Parts: sequence; structure tokens; C-alpha cells
Amino acid sequence: MIEESGHITKIVTYDSTLRDGEQGEGVALSLEDKLRIVEVLDRFGIDIIEGGFPASNPKDIAFFERVSELPLAHARIAAFGSTCRKDCVAAEDEGLQNLVASGAPIVTIVGKAWDQQVVRVLQTTLEENLRMIRDSVRYLCEQGRTVVFDAEHFFDGFRANAEYALACVREAALAGATSIALCDTNGGMLPDEISETVKATLAALPDIRLGIHCHNDTGCAVANTLAAVAAGATHVQGTINGVGERVGNTDLLTTIANLELKMGYECVGPERLRRLTKVSHFVAETCNMAVPSHHPYTGASAFAHKGGLHASAQARFPHAYEHTDPNKVGNHARVLISELAGKASLIHKAKTLGIDLEPYPDKVNDIIADIKEREAAGYSYETADGSLAVLIQWHLGEYSSHFTLESFRVIVDDYEDQGARAKDAMSEATIKIHVGDKRFVATGEGAGPVGALDTALRMAITESYPQVADMELVDFKVRILDENVGTGATTRVAITTRDSQGSWGTIGVSENILEASWNALVDSIEYGLIRAGV
Amino acid sequence: MIEESGHITKIVTYDSTLRDGEQGEGVALSLEDKLRIVEVLDRFGIDIIEGGFPASNPKDIAFFERVSELPLAHARIAAFGSTCRKDCVAAEDEGLQNLVASGAPIVTIVGKAWDQQVVRVLQTTLEENLRMIRDSVRYLCEQGRTVVFDAEHFFDGFRANAEYALACVREAALAGATSIALCDTNGGMLPDEISETVKATLAALPDIRLGIHCHNDTGCAVANTLAAVAAGATHVQGTINGVGERVGNTDLLTTIANLELKMGYECVGPERLRRLTKVSHFVAETCNMAVPSHHPYTGASAFAHKGGLHASAQARFPHAYEHTDPNKVGNHARVLISELAGKASLIHKAKTLGIDLEPYPDKVNDIIADIKEREAAGYSYETADGSLAVLIQWHLGEYSSHFTLESFRVIVDDYEDQGARAKDAMSEATIKIHVGDKRFVATGEGAGPVGALDTALRMAITESYPQVADMELVDFKVRILDENVGTGATTRVAITTRDSQGSWGTIGVSENILEASWNALVDSIEYGLIRAGV
Repeated sequence: MIEESGHITKIVTYDSTLRDGEQGEGVALSLEDKLRIVEVLDRFGIDIIEGGFPASNPKDIAFFERVSELPLAHARIAAFGSTCRKDCVAAEDEGLQNLVASGAPIVTIVGKAWDQQVVRVLQTTLEENLRMIRDSVRYLCEQGRTVVFDAEHFFDGFRANAEYALACVREAALAGATSIALCDTNGGMLPDEISETVKATLAALPDIRLGIHCHNDTGCAVANTLAAVAAGATHVQGTINGVGERVGNTDLLTTIANLELKMGYECVGPERLRRLTKVSHFVAETCNMAVPSHHPYTGASAFAHKGGLHASAQARFPHAYEHTDPNKVGNHARVLISELAGKASLIHKAKTLGIDLEPYPDKVNDIIADIKEREAAGYSYETADGSLAVLIQWHLGEYSSHFTLESFRVIVDDYEDQGARAKDAMSEATIKIHVGDKRFVATGEGAGPVGALDTALRMAITESYPQVADMELVDFKVRILDENVGTGATTRVAITTRDSQGSWGTIGVSENILEASWNALVDSIEYGLIRAGV
Repeated sequence: MIEESGHITKIVTYDSTLRDGEQGEGVALSLEDKLRIVEVLDRFGIDIIEGGFPASNPKDIAFFERVSELPLAHARIAAFGSTCRKDCVAAEDEGLQNLVASGAPIVTIVGKAWDQQVVRVLQTTLEENLRMIRDSVRYLCEQGRTVVFDAEHFFDGFRANAEYALACVREAALAGATSIALCDTNGGMLPDEISETVKATLAALPDIRLGIHCHNDTGCAVANTLAAVAAGATHVQGTINGVGERVGNTDLLTTIANLELKMGYECVGPERLRRLTKVSHFVAETCNMAVPSHHPYTGASAFAHKGGLHASAQARFPHAYEHTDPNKVGNHARVLISELAGKASLIHKAKTLGIDLEPYPDKVNDIIADIKEREAAGYSYETADGSLAVLIQWHLGEYSSHFTLESFRVIVDDYEDQGARAKDAMSEATIKIHVGDKRFVATGEGAGPVGALDTALRMAITESYPQVADMELVDFKVRILDENVGTGATTRVAITTRDSQGSWGTIGVSENILEASWNALVDSIEYGLIRAGV
């Protein structure tokens, strides 16, 4: 937002990945993980990083010790807790003492702002809740901390009893809180009500810095956050990629991109915004998750175009089908290779894989002809960058297989369980391969035949290529292509493999599911070795 | 929205899963998949279901033939295409002729509404584009079709040249289009601009029915759609679970839940809204995807509470931490085991399978316990009616297997092709089974191991059950359930089988893909024999 003075409004960014985000199902971060995330968020330009509850467990206590030793360039660390207990003086409250002892320069405390929550959940009086807010904020300020007050259930509370909700915020502000974050704790709000409530709050309390903290239960957390900013909030809370309990918190990265690129506010600035995609993927990897390919701004498909019509339109009218330049967020346009593939899109696609096809116009025709033939046979390179790279390199003659197959045999034995159901199958795969002039024979066992093949292949090549230990098969999918011919139909196997740098897809097609799996497996290892520079 | 008259405004719901959704990476639907989705959306109360482009390939042509034979209770089918080509009379345009030939009662055509797109991408005059819109809509109306006009890039176009964007909409309306859907084709809009643009459009053209079609590139597709409705649009387009290219389309289910539960509009009505979660999971399964656990309203975690604080607060103040009652959307407040976890729903489900469970209340408890145990192990009965029926019959003791397995062995041999790629594998399955007191040994060959198993099983039982000749396996899908453990993970195989009367789904789960396939295969034959009255 450019003010009349020409000054761009700065929005304070507050990341809660390490606290509220860690409430999300499947998110578990080690101490080292947390410290690495802090460093990455600091470099990205996040203003405040919430580290956790400094009393809940030894890991969190250790975190605050270790983080204080990190040479952060920009970010400040916040410790999170609650107001003092009811009927307890703030200075004697153990939770508040722990917050102070954490040494964090910022302390965020949550307090209730919905009258019914005070009476029925906290089981105290409305006056006592105001006292708890006032005393707690004042005590923390006296201890030299910058205080953020999270007004829990503020929007539900405002709907039920606006006067009381505002009174809670007023107490915190008068007692010295620097920012008051209005929380949609249950996540049920929509943008219009958020906007009206923020405006009403600022009208009643014009001198405070308001923040916003949303959850995504209506699928509107980002929009709710933007609505609050448009209504005057200048502090936004969220988590990287929107991790968090239930359906998650506000996605802070999508919010930052929208605020900077669509609304003209400043959060991290255009230079650091180019790290957006990297930050998204780094934090996801650290949380042991994948960034969904359809994630706004940072997903692998966020700027993907099918070949053909759109691709040629794009050539005539750059950005005709892009809402923003992907370079601004560190992502890139990706052309999905498909049956409609043209020369320009193949050359562009190859470039994104690090292969320059410009000097080889004849090869381009060969490759397109080969892709078309393979796609007619059931291949689909849209999600199989690894297989496509191997194919292109093979055509360029710059690539020779790291190993060659002589044969494999897979045996699955299964015996009766109850009725006709099978149980406790045994799978065994024997493969014979050549690496250079050496021949290797290996037998692998597995719970299933693909696992047995994978094990046998790794056993056979690990002496020649120890890098294979770094590659992990993380997903495999199977699809019958022509359903009308049942089990005799062509089968397509798609595999996702991961190394420490990222992940890639490969594909295999055959009437035989194990042959298709083998071919996808071979591409995944071949491309992994290319990536590893072997 | 309750109008002054007390009447609740009805919003027309328009599903584009089978067309725009199928543009999403990794989404590929067979003809049978599409027909099953149509049936489910019809029961859910979707008003218009877009089926695809009726000319692009034989599968889509077959779809329009087959769908016209379905006895739909509520929904109408739309065929999708473009306006006529430039410099071509509408009546002579092949694309428009294909749309008419599809027989679909509704035809949706997309036309450009952004002046620069007309000039630079279409490379024609602004006047000619208006002519194309006018002639195309008029021609389709003359052919007796209800016409929906999708105004492509409307919001970008309105920003660049509002007068021309409005002229495009006006042409379509004057020529007879029933609804005009304003499209945020690039997905870059935010709610405020959507709201202002819709209001301005309705101010200029007050007598038209406006629709809205958004993409989620800013993470705001749902909020944008709600903003359009609040501004006066009464027709919403989207896809189930928000599948679609790049980051996806508006999630129609989240939108419907918000419109009904938060904004007071009517879409499908409160009774059918209870099917929301089921529809979400059914379509995801059919697309061979999983519903993310954090999906709004329908995800497994959407109403999950961590133990401790929130749970005890919940006891003191029901719905203290829930933004809406999960029952309203067919979801559950706890980590749900299954749709079938309740007695009433199991009894109801069994009835749809022709099994009366009312006289067996004790059995119902046993079956629910068994289902919960199996679902914890990875089974999912939402798309596996055949397996569910077999399971229920087995519990009722009314069913004994038509055959019992002694053992099977599958061998796959494969030899080198080029490099490490395998080609021309040979699969052989030997099974030993018992039918009554007779023992059968049969060996089947197949292009793949599942085909070999299928062949061997049919050979072994065909003497006892000649009805098996009428059953055809039409689709099989494989999913790894815990991708973090790679090929050692649990595998779920879903099979669709067809006889002359219809089709059914069955499921098998195992760490071994062939064992899982066998179990799904056995259920498919068993249920087929039950259907045949054997």
C-alpha cells in the first residue's frame, strides 16, 4: 500500500510454524530442525519467529538457549505462553516466569476475549479475566520484554459481546502490549466479517498496532488475513505452507506474495521474495512433508502449462496465462509435455532440466517423434521429469546407461488364509546386470515384488555406485490405461524418488506391471546418478 | 441469503471436475470413472455437470452417449467448447456442430473478453470477436440448447478495458445465453476486486444471471467465489476438492459449505449437504488421489482435536473449538475411522446393497468393529461396494466362499532390451483351489502377473461357475498408503468389474501388490457370483 506520502506500508510478519504449526498432524521437528528453520526464515526476512512454549518440555527450553546464540541478521525470537492463572499474581505465575527465563526478547501471551469462554471454560468472572490480561502484560513489560497479545476467539467473542471483546484488547494495549493479534481461533470466519470487525476495533482503539491470526477451516485463511490488512491490521501471523492443526493456519508465504505482488505492501521486499519457493520447499522437507504440486506460488505445478494451445498463445502474448512472473517468487514456468508437444515447448522444457537443445534442431525432431510414439503407447511425461531427462540425454548420445540388464526373475508364493484370501506372500527377485565389464547377480527379498526388485537392484549396483544409498523411493502409483481390456491392458507405473536435494518422477509403461515398475525404477536410479554427477 | 420476502436465494452449482478438473496434473479419469462421478454428483444435488469436450477424443464422445442413458434425478449435463472460429459462420463451425451432436441439453462455450487476448492471441478484430460470441450463442440457442457463456479472462479484461469486457458479456446475453460465467482464468485476483467488478457488471447489465469461475493461484479461489456471490452472482463453477491445472480451480465443496452454513444461501440444501464428506472422498478415490487430511470441512483432521486442554474445554462448552457442527457436512468431531462407523449408516448402506441388517443388531456391532479394524489396516470401503457386501454376508453366516485357495505362485521372467530396460516379460501363475470337495490346479499366462492370476483363477473355476465368463475386469488401481516407507509400504488395490447388469468395486490390501490384487480379484468374482444368484 503506497501511502499519500509515497511511503509503502510495512507489514510485520510473524511466523508460528515452530509453535502453532507443530500442532499439525504429522509435523514433528527436532531441535536441529527448528534451528535450521530459524536461520532460513531469518535470511528470508521474517520479522518475528515464534519458537514454542519455553516450559512445556526440555527440547523447547534447549531451543531458547541455542537460538540465542545464533547470529540472526533480522528476525527476533518470540516465546509463547498464556496470561497468568486466575486468582494468581502475575509475578508469581510459573508460566510467566518461564517466559521471562527463556530470554526471548519478545513474549507472546494468549488471553481470552470471548465472554462465554471466560465464564464456562475458564470458570471465572469477566473482571478477573481483564485483570489477568492487565497484570500479565504489565509484568512482562516490566521485565523488559516486547509483548504481543493474542486475543483468543476474538471474532467469535466480538460477534457475541463486542464491548467485552474490545475491553480485553484495550486492557492489553493500556498495559503496554506492542501488538494485539486478533485470533479467529476456530477458523470459521469469512473475509467480510473479518474486515468489519477489524475496522470496528480500530475505530474504538485507534492507537494500537493490530495483528491478525487465522485458521483455514473455511478455506479462506489467506483471504481473511488480507481482508484484515486492508482494514488496517499491520502484523500478520501464519505458518510456512499453512501447516497447523485441523486444516492448518494462514499460509504465511502465500499471504506475503499476495501482499507484495497484488496489494503493494512491503513484507520482505522484492529481493528476498525470490526465495519464497526455496523457503517453502526447505521447510516442507524439514517437516518431512512434500509441498503439494498445486501449492499457490511455490508448488511444482503453480506455473505449469500444458503444451499446445496455451503454449503458443504464451509465445504471442507473454504472461497471457500467468497471473504473475514466477521469477518474482523464485519459481519457474513449467511446460507439461503432452501429446500436443511442439518444438518450442520441448526446447523450453529441456532448458528447465539443464539441457540445451538449441544447437540440435534435428535431434529435437527425433525426440518429439519418440515422445509422441511413447505417449501413444501410454507414457506420460507430465510428472516424469527424470524419465524425460534420461530420454533426451539418450537421444543426444551424451548418455550411456550406468548398467545393463541381462535378466530378472520375480517369484511370488502365496498360501491360503481364510477362504480364498491370500496372506503372507513371499517375494523374491533375482537380477543379473552388467556394470562396465563386470557382471553382478543379486537376489533381494521384499514384502512385495517391487520392493524385492528394488532391493536386488540396489544390492547389485551399490558397489559401483554408492550414491544409490542417498536415493529413496517415496511413492509409486499404478494405472491401467485402457480399461476395456482388463488385466491385459497397458500398465503405467509412476515412481517418485528423493535424494537430499529434492525429488523427481519417473515412469514405466508395459503390459506387465513388474516390467513397468522395473523401467521406472531404472530411470529413477539413472536420473539420480546423473543428478549426483556420476 | 434470506431475501426480504423470507425466500432463501438459490445458487446454481456447476461442476467442472470432468473437464477443467481433468486438466490437473495426475488426474486421468476413465469413462466408467466419469459416469460414476456423474451419478454421485447427481445424488448430491449438483445442478449442472460439465462432461468434457465432445469432439476431442472417442472417450468423450462415448461419454455423452452413455451419460444420456443414465437416469439422473436432478443434474443436467453440459458439453464444453469454444465459440466458432474467426471468419467462420457458426452453423458451419465443426466444433459447434460437435457440441450439438453430443446431445447435451446444456452447452457451455468459452469466448474471449480481454481485448489484448483478442488482438494478440486470437489475432482478429474486437468486432469479429463480438460477432463470434453473438453468432455462436444464437446458433446453439436455435438448436434448442441452454447456453452458458464463459467469459475468459473477464477480470483481467475488465481491468484493461472495462467497456469491451462488458460488451462481450452483453453480446452473449442478448444472443440468448442463460448464464454468463465471469472467469478469472489466470487466477490472480483477490476478493475485493472480484466484488467490485461483479457489482459494476451487474450495474451495467442488471438483467443477466451472472456466474463466477475462479482458479486458486492466490490461494483465494473460495473467497473470490464467495465475494462474487455476495456481489450478486448466482451461479458458481468449481471442481470437487478443487482439482484442476496449476494450483487448481475453486473447491466447489468448500464453497457450497460456506454458502449454506456461513452465508445462508441454498445450494444443495441441508439434507444433501450431509453427503459433502462422502462426495469429497469418493471423487478423490476415483481420481486416484487422497483427500488431504487438512482439507476444509471434509478432511480427516478438519474437526480433529488434540487431547488435553481443548478436549476438556469442549466438554464444558460444546462447540467451543468447532466453527460448525461436523455432522452438517457428514464429517466427525474425532479422528474418524469411517463413514460406516455408525449403526444407522451401516444399516442404510447394506440396504442399498440389497442386504437387510435390521433383524441382526448384534451382527451390526461385529461388522462395525471389523470394518474399523480393516480401515486401520488401510482398507477403504467407500468405493468398494463389492468387498463390503462380501464382508457383510460373511458376518451374517449367509455366505460361504464359492472356492478356497490352497496356494498360488506367480513367476515373472524378463530379459534385456536396450540398456537396462526390460521388454517382453513372461508371466505365469499357477493356482491350486478347491470347489466343494473337488481340487483344481490351473496355470495361466498373461502379459502381466495380475492378468496371469486372473486367467488361472477363471480357468480353475469356470467348470463349476460358468457365470464367470460374463464378468470382465475393467479397471484396476494401486495406491501406496504410507509413502514414507517406499516399496515396503502397504498397498491398496482397487478393482472395478463389470457384468451385463452393471459394475462394482472391490478392494484388497497387503504389503504385497499381488496378494492385494488376488484378494480384490477374489472379492470381485465372489460378489459377481452373488449378483448372478449363485
